[in-house]
Amino acid sequence: MELQEYANLDYDRERRCGFPEVIFGEGKTAEQICEIASALLKRHDLVLATRVSDEKAAEVLAQIDDAIYMPIPRLLFVDRRENPIRTNNVNEALTTVTQSRTTGNIIVCCAGTSDLPVAQEAAMTACLMGSHVTLLTDIGVAGVHRTLAHEDELKSARVIVAVAGMEGALPSLIAGLVGVPVVAVPTSVGYGASFGGISALLSMMNSCAGGVSVVNIDNGFGAGQVAHRINSPSWL
Amino acid sequence: MELQEYANLDYDRERRCGFPEVIFGEGKTAEQICEIASALLKRHDLVLATRVSDEKAAEVLAQIDDAIYMPIPRLLFVDRRENPIRTNNVNEALTTVTQSRTTGNIIVCCAGTSDLPVAQEAAMTACLMGSHVTLLTDIGVAGVHRTLAHEDELKSARVIVAVAGMEGALPSLIAGLVGVPVVAVPTSVGYGASFGGISALLSMMNSCAGGVSVVNIDNGFGAGQVAHRINSPSWL
Amino acid sequence: MELQEYANLDYDRERRCGFPEVIFGEGKTAEQICEIASALLKRHDLVLATRVSDEKAAEVLAQIDDAIYMPIPRLLFVDRRENPIRTNNVNEALTTVTQSRTTGNIIVCCAGTSDLPVAQEAAMTACLMGSHVTLLTDIGVAGVHRTLAHEDELKSARVIVAVAGMEGALPSLIAGLVGVPVVAVPTSVGYGASFGGISALLSMMNSCAGGVSVVNIDNGFGAGQVAHRINSPSWL
Amino acid sequence: MELQEYANLDYDRERRCGFPEVIFGEGKTAEQICEIASALLKRHDLVLATRVSDEKAAEVLAQIDDAIYMPIPRLLFVDRRENPIRTNNVNEALTTVTQSRTTGNIIVCCAGTSDLPVAQEAAMTACLMGSHVTLLTDIGVAGVHRTLAHEDELKSARVIVAVAGMEGALPSLIAGLVGVPVVAVPTSVGYGASFGGISALLSMMNSCAGGVSVVNIDNGFGAGQVAHRINSPSWL
Amino acid sequence: MELQEYANLDYDRERRCGFPEVIFGEGKTAEQICEIASALLKRHDLVLATRVSDEKAAEVLAQIDDAIYMPIPRLLFVDRRENPIRTNNVNEALTTVTQSRTTGNIIVCCAGTSDLPVAQEAAMTACLMGSHVTLLTDIGVAGVHRTLAHEDELKSARVIVAVAGMEGALPSLIAGLVGVPVVAVPTSVGYGASFGGISALLSMMNSCAGGVSVVNIDNGFGAGQVAHRINSPSWL
Amino acid sequence: MELQEYANLDYDRERRCGFPEVIFGEGKTAEQICEIASALLKRHDLVLATRVSDEKAAEVLAQIDDAIYMPIPRLLFVDRRENPIRTNNVNEALTTVTQSRTTGNIIVCCAGTSDLPVAQEAAMTACLMGSHVTLLTDIGVAGVHRTLAHEDELKSARVIVAVAGMEGALPSLIAGLVGVPVVAVPTSVGYGASFGGISALLSMMNSCAGGVSVVNIDNGFGAGQVAHRINSPSWL
Amino acid sequence: MELQEYANLDYDRERRCGFPEVIFGEGKTAEQICEIASALLKRHDLVLATRVSDEKAAEVLAQIDDAIYMPIPRLLFVDRRENPIRTNNVNEALTTVTQSRTTGNIIVCCAGTSDLPVAQEAAMTACLMGSHVTLLTDIGVAGVHRTLAHEDELKSARVIVAVAGMEGALPSLIAGLVGVPVVAVPTSVGYGASFGGISALLSMMNSCAGGVSVVNIDNGFGAGQVAHRINSPSWL
Amino acid sequence: MELQEYANLDYDRERRCGFPEVIFGEGKTAEQICEIASALLKRHDLVLATRVSDEKAAEVLAQIDDAIYMPIPRLLFVDRRENPIRTNNVNEALTTVTQSRTTGNIIVCCAGTSDLPVAQEAAMTACLMGSHVTLLTDIGVAGVHRTLAHEDELKSARVIVAVAGMEGALPSLIAGLVGVPVVAVPTSVGYGASFGGISALLSMMNSCAGGVSVVNIDNGFGAGQVAHRINSPSWL
Repeated sequence: MELQEYANLDYDRERRCGFPEVIFGEGKTAEQICEIASALLKRHDLVLATRVSDEKAAEVLAQIDDAIYMPIPRLLFVDRRENPIRTNNVNEALTTVTQSRTTGNIIVCCAGTSDLPVAQEAAMTACLMGSHVTLLTDIGVAGVHRTLAHEDELKSARVIVAVAGMEGALPSLIAGLVGVPVVAVPTSVGYGASFGGISALLSMMNSCAGGVSVVNIDNGFGAGQVAHRINSPSWL
Repeated sequence: MELQEYANLDYDRERRCGFPEVIFGEGKTAEQICEIASALLKRHDLVLATRVSDEKAAEVLAQIDDAIYMPIPRLLFVDRRENPIRTNNVNEALTTVTQSRTTGNIIVCCAGTSDLPVAQEAAMTACLMGSHVTLLTDIGVAGVHRTLAHEDELKSARVIVAVAGMEGALPSLIAGLVGVPVVAVPTSVGYGASFGGISALLSMMNSCAGGVSVVNIDNGFGAGQVAHRINSPSWL
Repeated sequence: MELQEYANLDYDRERRCGFPEVIFGEGKTAEQICEIASALLKRHDLVLATRVSDEKAAEVLAQIDDAIYMPIPRLLFVDRRENPIRTNNVNEALTTVTQSRTTGNIIVCCAGTSDLPVAQEAAMTACLMGSHVTLLTDIGVAGVHRTLAHEDELKSARVIVAVAGMEGALPSLIAGLVGVPVVAVPTSVGYGASFGGISALLSMMNSCAGGVSVVNIDNGFGAGQVAHRINSPSWL
Repeated sequence: MELQEYANLDYDRERRCGFPEVIFGEGKTAEQICEIASALLKRHDLVLATRVSDEKAAEVLAQIDDAIYMPIPRLLFVDRRENPIRTNNVNEALTTVTQSRTTGNIIVCCAGTSDLPVAQEAAMTACLMGSHVTLLTDIGVAGVHRTLAHEDELKSARVIVAVAGMEGALPSLIAGLVGVPVVAVPTSVGYGASFGGISALLSMMNSCAGGVSVVNIDNGFGAGQVAHRINSPSWL
Repeated sequence: MELQEYANLDYDRERRCGFPEVIFGEGKTAEQICEIASALLKRHDLVLATRVSDEKAAEVLAQIDDAIYMPIPRLLFVDRRENPIRTNNVNEALTTVTQSRTTGNIIVCCAGTSDLPVAQEAAMTACLMGSHVTLLTDIGVAGVHRTLAHEDELKSARVIVAVAGMEGALPSLIAGLVGVPVVAVPTSVGYGASFGGISALLSMMNSCAGGVSVVNIDNGFGAGQVAHRINSPSWL
Repeated sequence: MELQEYANLDYDRERRCGFPEVIFGEGKTAEQICEIASALLKRHDLVLATRVSDEKAAEVLAQIDDAIYMPIPRLLFVDRRENPIRTNNVNEALTTVTQSRTTGNIIVCCAGTSDLPVAQEAAMTACLMGSHVTLLTDIGVAGVHRTLAHEDELKSARVIVAVAGMEGALPSLIAGLVGVPVVAVPTSVGYGASFGGISALLSMMNSCAGGVSVVNIDNGFGAGQVAHRINSPSWL
Repeated sequence: MELQEYANLDYDRERRCGFPEVIFGEGKTAEQICEIASALLKRHDLVLATRVSDEKAAEVLAQIDDAIYMPIPRLLFVDRRENPIRTNNVNEALTTVTQSRTTGNIIVCCAGTSDLPVAQEAAMTACLMGSHVTLLTDIGVAGVHRTLAHEDELKSARVIVAVAGMEGALPSLIAGLVGVPVVAVPTSVGYGASFGGISALLSMMNSCAGGVSVVNIDNGFGAGQVAHRINSPSWL
Repeated sequence: MELQEYANLDYDRERRCGFPEVIFGEGKTAEQICEIASALLKRHDLVLATRVSDEKAAEVLAQIDDAIYMPIPRLLFVDRRENPIRTNNVNEALTTVTQSRTTGNIIVCCAGTSDLPVAQEAAMTACLMGSHVTLLTDIGVAGVHRTLAHEDELKSARVIVAVAGMEGALPSLIAGLVGVPVVAVPTSVGYGASFGGISALLSMMNSCAGGVSVVNIDNGFGAGQVAHRINSPSWL
């Protein structure tokens, strides 16, 4: 009965928002994810589950043949659209598969390995929704010359997702360089006084640069969704 | 010398961002505001100062003849563009003057009198930047039928700024109805466990509805700026 | 000796409160739970233990034949009243067994799967105490039309328990629709800036709608108890 | 136009909740309070404004002849019902005037002088709504024998509002004695580690006694409203 | 070399404080505890280690023959004094063994099973130091009549250690009854808004009753030490 | 009626605790203080009010002839005992007047001018209760040699009250030198990350030295009361 | 007597630290500042008081003829050395007077007007201690090209003091460019989620760039002192 | 590609900062650490990884022959310089190997076993960078005479790293004795109200002694790096 609800809900939302309901994988069993996904697939050709652990993903993959799991961003999806994404490699998905049908240009950027899971979650979310996404992973406030080497590329984007943990200064730095909206994502990377991402969250809320708005700690999915809505306006 | 810096900076930013540097009025004297504004006006035809108190505004108005001060949103500006805003009445500015040259459609909404200063700051910021803005002030989660009476209007916007204090639930409610980005602004309205806006801020960060991103507590200016960038993309 | 204390205490409380002492299962061993329950059963025909893990429950069930364990709300009880509840299925217990002797009408509502354990704990607590309880699980602020589909049903209740995590806006939404007391239960569902339920707790404390009072994070038991006391006044 | 909204809203709410919209006086000017009150009085025979300062009250009293102001609970109301409350003395209002038409019995209790403003706000709110209210002001955890001297009286109530600052232990103490709902109100009374009422708030959220639910810090109005709804059920 | 330091230090402290250095067991390996204990035992006839887990204790007991481990308070000690404590049963140690040589009278009290580990740590610490200690475990603010049943006994103590989690109201209740110092120990018992003992800690800091001072969360050892110093003044 | 309560209460408490009820002056008007004090003076020969501002004190002094006000510790008292304290100079009171009848020896110590109000409140409270008190004001962790110059004096005390703001390290330093109880009082002295005394409070809660217990921020009165109870045991 | 202590203390410290005791002006009266300063001037030729308000300064200047007060950094000093600083203009003091005898090179930098008081406090503290200090006020993370324009100058310093409020990213940016120690000073500039400087403080504690250490919020004096010690090593 | 970035980056930084990029081991797999280390070793003769667990270290040691792992400070390094450190014993490395080529003198001090991992991390970081480091582990505020026994040694250092958990008072104590910079490192040692190091962090931020600056909780690496920069100035 709950699944029926999900299916109906998605139908309404999809018409409105251009994307079906997404399954929040945390706190659900693999069985529950399979059930909800199956119900959604009766009406939709694309289903996405976020925050899915390796163990749960293995169970789901065993039951849904064409499900794809990307372990670093912990995303699991079933893509039954015309030109489906069939790779579980994030970079391949971003650079090759989606080129044919994406629109506009989102840049997702972060400093390096530690923030990569959240950055990839943001990038793949927007990519699955249909945006063209570029992922830059060697940008950070402590090595500002590397950031400036990308200045022109950053200025060419329609919207930028800036992902950072620890002191969370990246969005301010980026927003000082460009004139488009910057969606800031604090991550829980750090220790001690990073307080699980609070330090980065507060930094981003207090950005002295214009055009910055913030999503929840580690919420790559939310940032990808906001960025896609900005990048592909429904009114165009 | 510092003023020179301001003036040069703005010149660069304006080309990039479509708007000159803004003067953060809090913590500056009326004299400082006048000096910086005068320097900026040598290069720009629009200057905006935020968080300006009544007392400071009176001093500035005495020195700069064509400055306009709006006391509720505490905004002070000098508009020397072709079709300038010459009224200090927010509703008049939003509905009459700007119609001729604004583009797109932003809705700024809040529940009522208490959140009005922040909502007006957001609305006027976007309006001065050139966006067409509608201000809805009778919307709130505790009176959901009133909100739904505006459902079609909300769905017609390109971006929505949702302003709320206390439990801060308005952005979630709105985002559940529309498919465009929602910029959430927590306000410090409330007492006790509202902790000066923290309650609303956390609610908005944790919105279970898609497409919500958040700016700092009481930061109407920031929300208006983000909304304008979304509403009037530089790439169109 | 401590058990004797418990047994005596319950005797007094039952006359006063209509329900025996409840065993707080967290931090007690299965053995301790069995001992206390056995002591209480010498005087009472109904004993309830909350926050009992699967492992502990298995041990208790092995020792007390007619004990019932509901794993999702983690409740364990022994019901030796005249028309006892003999099912471990929450929905069955709520809809079938208790109909014959319950009084009044409590609605417990939440948004979905994640908040279900706490909602079921609240519902079963009130049900065991003798209230008629309806459980609604498809209600949330982000899908307000679904909530409004239940508006008449919600208005028919004597008291409503509203369970929500993340932004915790459900109690405000409900309280704006009805004229009866709303008992709000924040849950620890969420991540990042939900801070283990603080976000939802603060939202509920700051509800701008009337008639809302709040219990501790994840305290479904407490909410069920308050709701039952309101639903079945001792003075009627 | 906003006033019209208020007036319509109240009409709906009154039928549903038995009480007109209440004006939150904090952050509104005396002029705004007068305007909203006048609009409401066209449809209602009772209007209440909370958190009204002495200065604002004096201005309102100068404009609305039959307005009553109680300075300790900072309540201002206009009562044009058949047997109106015409005294600005809280004790007189509670003991004399309301006797003729109140129903049921609420006890509002606190430890002494410091918590009195919040306790009176709760008591008068419920009294104005039509409940019979008794106010006990010499009860506290540090003088438990005094509390126990009221044990029988406490047990006779239908609902109890327990107001306390500092360590906030009163609701637990009371709830251990009675079998009816206890609405707990933390106050900002205290200094240092009371953190403006957080200490009392947390104590009340963690009450080990049953039947306790909590409202916001210093929210006497909210507690009175919840208590009245429990005391005078709409379904009786 | 570090052990030598320990041994010398204790010699000085013992003369001054009447008790050797205590080993903080948390964060030390069983091997480290053995080494330090052995070094201390060359100079002292009593060594105490706190916060020792079951696993570490087993290793230490295998190496030091006459070591005693009490698992609930997680205390491990070697007592080579004239009338040594040779039981690992707390109640037995408190009631039988120590009677012959203890002085004065400390009461350690708590509400029940959950706070028992901390209460026993406090009681055994003071007992090992040479105080006569009575442990009351059926006292709590939610069952005030049980507490009052002990009123005379409580008044007979020289100092009281009051241990409580959740709302932490016990010390206030006790201090309102007696005229001796009350050492309050908050515990981490609870969930949700108890925040690991912060709720109880703040309550105790804000006690409106006189004579209360507070030690760290779960610091039974510290409370026992303070109580012993008060109970057995060095100046008598 | 409330005053009557106060008077009766004090009578009971005095027999038990050796000191009448104390008036918490904050949040009371001068008139209220006078009324309560007058009522208490009918039964007691000593009344103390804490946290009394200069303005309120002037009003009280105008009404109660023999009232004494000490402005730095903000204490106001009426001493009608046999050898009353008749000076409003703290040092004079501590060194001269009380010598004739005090017992034992309390040392109250702090670093300097800033913590002096709280230290004097502690010292005078214990002095009024009948303890012999020495006040040391040139002791601090940043000038450890000055502290050590007082080592013998510190070791001679029966109990020590250590008052400190900012990093709050003084109690640990003192407790490492002596074998008697140390009552720690955090003060709100400091700025920035001292957070109104939280920094000092946490330091004191986490003292690695034995025998330290803590009272509320700026609670000199509470510390003096605890210290007096330790210094002058009722059981001697 | 306390003054004597100060005087002696300073004598010792000066030999050790190269600078006399500094008077913390907050919470002291003008009279107290004069007394302590006069006592110190008997032994020292330089006395500094920090956090002195305009009002207090006026009183001190009236009593001590050669005292200098700088209102923006709120510093008051008496310089009776050979080549004394006799100007109350910070820039003049930094650029002209001190050139003759300072050593090494400290750069103090901040973004602009708002952080200037703290930056000037840091700069003047180090300058008075004898360091050569350069003050850069047009550097910030949101305008990174301006910062880079100073890259060579920054690299030439021996130590850098980076002052920032709001997101507090400046120290990370600077530390990524240079190889010398960076002393970070968070300021309370900002509003909402800046929480009086906590946001900036946490950012700086979590800097991902090497060589950053942090002082208290708004503690320009402390930063200047640390920087001077690094700049002018006592071992050279 | 990312590795290439690392290698290039380090080349630039080494010239500037005298030390190659350091690998933050937490959140990286052993495989990632090996890859990055190998890439760095193509250009550098010294590579350091921090926060490496035992398990990861074993894997890395199996792949890189000459890697050294120190388990207590969790440091892993490959030293291919002329006089390499070849021991995994911290004390041996500090006292023997590095003597030949280190310069200056850093003292790292802490109270004992619990803070040792962080202290060793600080000491070995500075040692690997080329500083002469002395490690004192028997110093603490609760045993001040032991600290003073090292007073002359402490005064001989060029910079001191003071490591402390719990109340975090050590840096204040040390800074009161010396005239050189003190780098304070709070550790997460403690329980209850130590809040994972917040207590120590706040203490250190509020130090009333001069010359103290603070790094992140448990950030021994950062403190070692700051200390080395102060000890071995690039401008000498």
